[in-house]
Amino acid sequence: MGLFDGISPRTLLASALLLSSAAQDVFARPAPEPKVPWMRNRNGAAKKKMANHLKRAVEGHGRRTTETACADSLVTEITAPKPNIWGELTDVETAGVVAWLFAQEDLNLTITEDAGAWDNSIQLVEAMWPNKTDALAFIDGNATAPSKYAHVLLNNRATVDPYYADILVGPLPIDNATATWEPLSYPYNKGDGGTVRNLDADSDVLYAEWIFPIGASIADITLDLWNGTAMGLDNDTLDIWGIDPLWQSDGKIIRWDTFWNIPTGDFDSETLLPLGLYFMSDVTGRDPSKWKFEGWLYNNVFYSTTEEFRSAYWGSCFKKNTANEDGPWAQSDQQGEPLPMDDSYGPTVIAPAGSRFGIDHKEKYVEWQDWSFYIGFNRDTGMSLHDIRYKGERLLYELSLQEALAHYAGNDPMQSGTAYLDTFYGFGPYAFELVQGYDCPAYATFINSSFYVDETTHTHINSICLFETTADYPIQRHTTSKYVSVTKNNYFVVRSVSTVGNYDYTFTYSFFVDGSIAVEVRASGYIQSAYFAHNEDYGFHIHDSLSGSMHDHVLNFKADFDILGTSNSVQLMTAVPSKETYPWSKGQTRNTMKLERSFLETEDDGRLNWAPNGATQVIVVNEDEKNKYGEYRGYRVLPYTGTAHLTVKDSSNLENAAHWAEYDLQFTVQKDTEPRSAHAYNSQDVFDPPVDFAKFFDGESLRKEDIVLWMNLGMHHVPHTGDLPNTVMTTAHSGIQFMPSNYFMGDLSRRTVQQVRINYGTDGGAIEVETFGQLTSQDNVTCKLEFTPVEADLWGYTGDIVVRKFPFDPNDPYFETGSIV
Amino acid sequence: MGLFDGISPRTLLASALLLSSAAQDVFARPAPEPKVPWMRNRNGAAKKKMANHLKRAVEGHGRRTTETACADSLVTEITAPKPNIWGELTDVETAGVVAWLFAQEDLNLTITEDAGAWDNSIQLVEAMWPNKTDALAFIDGNATAPSKYAHVLLNNRATVDPYYADILVGPLPIDNATATWEPLSYPYNKGDGGTVRNLDADSDVLYAEWIFPIGASIADITLDLWNGTAMGLDNDTLDIWGIDPLWQSDGKIIRWDTFWNIPTGDFDSETLLPLGLYFMSDVTGRDPSKWKFEGWLYNNVFYSTTEEFRSAYWGSCFKKNTANEDGPWAQSDQQGEPLPMDDSYGPTVIAPAGSRFGIDHKEKYVEWQDWSFYIGFNRDTGMSLHDIRYKGERLLYELSLQEALAHYAGNDPMQSGTAYLDTFYGFGPYAFELVQGYDCPAYATFINSSFYVDETTHTHINSICLFETTADYPIQRHTTSKYVSVTKNNYFVVRSVSTVGNYDYTFTYSFFVDGSIAVEVRASGYIQSAYFAHNEDYGFHIHDSLSGSMHDHVLNFKADFDILGTSNSVQLMTAVPSKETYPWSKGQTRNTMKLERSFLETEDDGRLNWAPNGATQVIVVNEDEKNKYGEYRGYRVLPYTGTAHLTVKDSSNLENAAHWAEYDLQFTVQKDTEPRSAHAYNSQDVFDPPVDFAKFFDGESLRKEDIVLWMNLGMHHVPHTGDLPNTVMTTAHSGIQFMPSNYFMGDLSRRTVQQVRINYGTDGGAIEVETFGQLTSQDNVTCKLEFTPVEADLWGYTGDIVVRKFPFDPNDPYFETGSIV
Repeated sequence: MGLFDGISPRTLLASALLLSSAAQDVFARPAPEPKVPWMRNRNGAAKKKMANHLKRAVEGHGRRTTETACADSLVTEITAPKPNIWGELTDVETAGVVAWLFAQEDLNLTITEDAGAWDNSIQLVEAMWPNKTDALAFIDGNATAPSKYAHVLLNNRATVDPYYADILVGPLPIDNATATWEPLSYPYNKGDGGTVRNLDADSDVLYAEWIFPIGASIADITLDLWNGTAMGLDNDTLDIWGIDPLWQSDGKIIRWDTFWNIPTGDFDSETLLPLGLYFMSDVTGRDPSKWKFEGWLYNNVFYSTTEEFRSAYWGSCFKKNTANEDGPWAQSDQQGEPLPMDDSYGPTVIAPAGSRFGIDHKEKYVEWQDWSFYIGFNRDTGMSLHDIRYKGERLLYELSLQEALAHYAGNDPMQSGTAYLDTFYGFGPYAFELVQGYDCPAYATFINSSFYVDETTHTHINSICLFETTADYPIQRHTTSKYVSVTKNNYFVVRSVSTVGNYDYTFTYSFFVDGSIAVEVRASGYIQSAYFAHNEDYGFHIHDSLSGSMHDHVLNFKADFDILGTSNSVQLMTAVPSKETYPWSKGQTRNTMKLERSFLETEDDGRLNWAPNGATQVIVVNEDEKNKYGEYRGYRVLPYTGTAHLTVKDSSNLENAAHWAEYDLQFTVQKDTEPRSAHAYNSQDVFDPPVDFAKFFDGESLRKEDIVLWMNLGMHHVPHTGDLPNTVMTTAHSGIQFMPSNYFMGDLSRRTVQQVRINYGTDGGAIEVETFGQLTSQDNVTCKLEFTPVEADLWGYTGDIVVRKFPFDPNDPYFETGSIV
Repeated sequence: MGLFDGISPRTLLASALLLSSAAQDVFARPAPEPKVPWMRNRNGAAKKKMANHLKRAVEGHGRRTTETACADSLVTEITAPKPNIWGELTDVETAGVVAWLFAQEDLNLTITEDAGAWDNSIQLVEAMWPNKTDALAFIDGNATAPSKYAHVLLNNRATVDPYYADILVGPLPIDNATATWEPLSYPYNKGDGGTVRNLDADSDVLYAEWIFPIGASIADITLDLWNGTAMGLDNDTLDIWGIDPLWQSDGKIIRWDTFWNIPTGDFDSETLLPLGLYFMSDVTGRDPSKWKFEGWLYNNVFYSTTEEFRSAYWGSCFKKNTANEDGPWAQSDQQGEPLPMDDSYGPTVIAPAGSRFGIDHKEKYVEWQDWSFYIGFNRDTGMSLHDIRYKGERLLYELSLQEALAHYAGNDPMQSGTAYLDTFYGFGPYAFELVQGYDCPAYATFINSSFYVDETTHTHINSICLFETTADYPIQRHTTSKYVSVTKNNYFVVRSVSTVGNYDYTFTYSFFVDGSIAVEVRASGYIQSAYFAHNEDYGFHIHDSLSGSMHDHVLNFKADFDILGTSNSVQLMTAVPSKETYPWSKGQTRNTMKLERSFLETEDDGRLNWAPNGATQVIVVNEDEKNKYGEYRGYRVLPYTGTAHLTVKDSSNLENAAHWAEYDLQFTVQKDTEPRSAHAYNSQDVFDPPVDFAKFFDGESLRKEDIVLWMNLGMHHVPHTGDLPNTVMTTAHSGIQFMPSNYFMGDLSRRTVQQVRINYGTDGGAIEVETFGQLTSQDNVTCKLEFTPVEADLWGYTGDIVVRKFPFDPNDPYFETGSIV
């Protein structure tokens, strides 16, 4: 058996959310204070990790002694100034919501384990983030915390028109006397009470009653072509899956599916093994008996019926193409001639003084130097950052992923029809445990993330890492005839990695000593490839019958700037060539350049692309907060490691589901009704999705308003042989920086003591070495440490922890649970 | 006294080359084999450094033991396959050339120390790189090494029309019987026998006879305005310097100069202290008595004569602006509130196994993993890389800086007239010693560089660093339901930093395990600012009377690709939106995208910019070398950390001196007559410079030719308050990558063992940890090291070593020399 059981990788991921782990019918009541074991465990784990990494050999402490310990301190446990209002629900809160929901007879809910295709079930229970208007009064003022509500997603299938319903349940913790539910519609602009149709409702029967029978109907051909079948049998060696989103025009729901070889090894190589045979189905409606088979495609020839296809196939003129077969070329283990000296320990970053930052584990609140922020996490978009401040002054209210699009193209219907909107699968559930020493330095601090699935909460331990590191280049330097001055470029990283099916997205937020921030994504994992046949215009020929299928990655981020409050504007400043005469130029015209400045006046001009030749600076400023020289204090948005917006115009796959992908930078006024640029189920109704981003742009003023930037990272990816077996993060990168623009009075990095100035005399010898209080070799201070080559105990890699929420027993939270990873 | 003695920083730098250290009239003869002490010393220094950094505490060696040494090996000394034909001249060779030149009476040369403004002197003696046609026969075949010649630059001032003359002297070593000199003209396209006029010939008298007398003529005003003078006195507190290049239209040579405050401290802050008073001089010709004073400019008002200016100044309506004064805001030392936990040791990269690469110090030849290359160095452009190969197959014949432009603009004549072409000053002489642990990791291998000046060779020790390090993110990863696979992103860096006056350019070439290469520049140091007066359109107001003067940095690099030989082509592949119907789309038109491919046919279309939205891939391919799937093997040129070309169109300052700055990417056919895109003295005759890059484009075919890419890095810099005191390298960056495009059959990074695969069972626990032969914590292998917080002994920072070449005594090479730094 291969890695997937007759289901597309992404479908498999989605379906995992529907697989319940144990059937139960006992309602447990919430208890006053649960054990929250992973909460304490992770602190312990961090300590163990650090101790494991740096075994002290301490002979003394303190400054100016000859020996000191390398690991002075573990990460400092601090107390957040306010509770994290973007945090996760507690086990008790979640369990309370679930129990209460099952008690609401009008919701007609069935436990997921027992739920069939015609039952309603709970798809998601998680914290509802407060509206910004409510949040500001709390985090900036003396208001009490906003009431806590649960965001619940119901999967209502007990109807011929199945739909997902977003509802709000609360206030929390649940009190039967006050708890209510109401449709959650205000954050979405579809205008139908927070519902969207569910095209996936019959996924259970789809394979059994439709896909596999079709596979069986041409078993003679699949056996002849590939010596295999896709009939739902244990010994199938073929897999079938298809497009996402489904085609939704003219009131019909159309699938295109294709055959794939199931990997023969344990590697995740199926997306490299397409076989080039496609079929079309009209699966409109919930009655499989009314679904229609619409035809076959092979070698760019369309056959309307199976009979026609079979007749041609067994005829004398049929051209059979070769298959894509699994093998070492598709497997990521070490292979090929080993590199010289490579079995020696490689260069490694260490933290000789331990972690130089503070964290409130419970509130997921972090302070590094004068930066601070809260970490949020949710099912759709994974990790997010909130209330990012420098020295207590907020720069960003929110910095978060919104949606990720992978839009393919090709001459075949599979590639042509694919435009993954990945929050459908969710970045939260697929933010797996990070590998210490590989995904992040071994000395990093790792924290957990949790998500709800099937009446349980799953916890991925160590799925977010935080660490300070140092760049391979300094942040500042200058040499003169008298001195050299250089400053280390230490920076702080927050990272999570989400593997959504075939792709691994590494999300990195970095904070720098000069007040700048970098947002970066690097991609690895397996490409989704195409069968190579008549599709030279859509990719490179990269293996036997394989095309590296061209696709655009576009990842939308929300950056809700608050520059000295919420009265912000967007200034553009462009360097333009010009011809000028001056009082001193004696009438001569000079070919030179100058700056042209303007403001985005309204949302009508709020959608823009990076200017050619990088000529335009985009700066979020506060027009009422000029510095003493009269310049607006602001933050500039700066391209860093490349970006991309969507190549396709008016995509037939996406229609209105991803208008956010059309430009590089898009500015709107912040509204509680526009918290996110997309909805996880936009793919279910692309013509009328829950959130149509284009509707955000309704002409409102962008001057002195609460500005939100929706920015796109991404890349145009045309995989070549170097993407086999996996894409490499050296060149699969995208990033944007935020940098102070006249925000501070000078360069903030002058504050660090991690710098040196060496003065030299006329004979070139050093006459002064100023290290600003750092411990130096001149102090004869060394510290001893033991270096363990692969530092972390990788046998401790565990995957997730499941806490059953229904029935919920706080004293036995693991009651009848299994883990998924 | 301040840092500069009445000379502009860049003029100071240039003049340093003219200051001889001791008068001598004794000709020494070359001896058979000199001591080359720095050659051996640097090896010793490297050992000392490494030993200093990682003091071993070794109890055992070998694999699978419980303890081993952290520092297994220093950098391995290897032997280059061939001598470095881009290397420097030996002391004996240089001394021989100098002695021979002084013996040629027709050259009429005077020792620099003795040379006045009307004498001829030797400006430069360095190795002439061989023509590529000759070089290939040697490095790829069995031919003997190309004959060695010296490139000599003569500063011929014993004439009313002073000029620089490039000549070729050789063959080397000099034999009086065979040695000849000839004009060097073939690498330049000016067509006048390798000469260019010298506008700097009278710099000695310029200040004494022109600038300071003008300063004195308004001492009443400078004392009143700024309580200071610029008259050439020891107690002057003001400095005067001006535009570069000089204005050269209509047969006239025009200067604009301006006043600056001399820094009151030891910091290099003068370029932050402009005073806003400018004057114009016609300095055409060599007779100062015929030079003409042309007028004053203050507060945007032009005064034709000093009398007119004085009259206005002392009148009642004159508006006096405030001065820019030195202070902590302009000084780079630590200042401001110290950062939390910042006096603890920061994160640090270590090399537990020592250096995992090889170097031939003598030939400056490096091997890391399967990469290899030679390092060249010259006066104009500093460090360069040659014959870059992967597994013995050359990818690039040459990768080198060509020229760097800093083009300013402003309403004042100083900023408007400034467009520095930095190789005039030279990147070689200003590649100073690097600071260990700051500019490069302390464990890096540092090598020296040398340059000729005034009959001596100066050596900057430790001015190039080489090190392997590891990125803060992996190169590859993938998580599935059964395993996680992650690979470390170790890479190799070659770096030098050149401080050309106010700016520090950090040049970084990085080599990656997947076969990709990155070329990056990051800038720090002091900005050149403008006086703030009516120039809002040219920069931000960043201090009292200070404008952060807008300017474009454009840095041209030569990348001479040899993809499987020299028959290369440039393919463009663009992702374009398209409307398509397919055999299976039932007549419906789909909005999608596809690839359009084309080749650059001739040099006529060889000049291009990065496409909007990064839609176009630029790939250097070998059309005759398809891989087994029929795809061209090639290397893609990929934007990385941003680039820029020049904003100004048809610059009045540059005219024909820097046409290379006009596009992002420019492709030509390699020619021995077009080795470089610029000449160090292009600024001396901007209408008719020695090298006019535009002339390279003469319609030749670019198909199956030896392709050279001239690519521009750069940034549009509008300094804000965060550039004070120094620009920071977090956001002042530019970079381009080269990545394999179907060049290899798969991802090369699979070869490294620095990866891990962890398999887990259904309960989430690890069931296999495959580390591919790396030493791991499971092997119970640790190693001990002592960590010294500021690792290097910074008191060892020395600056350069001078070896006198004329007179030259190999047994006393330091005879009567001083050092400059």
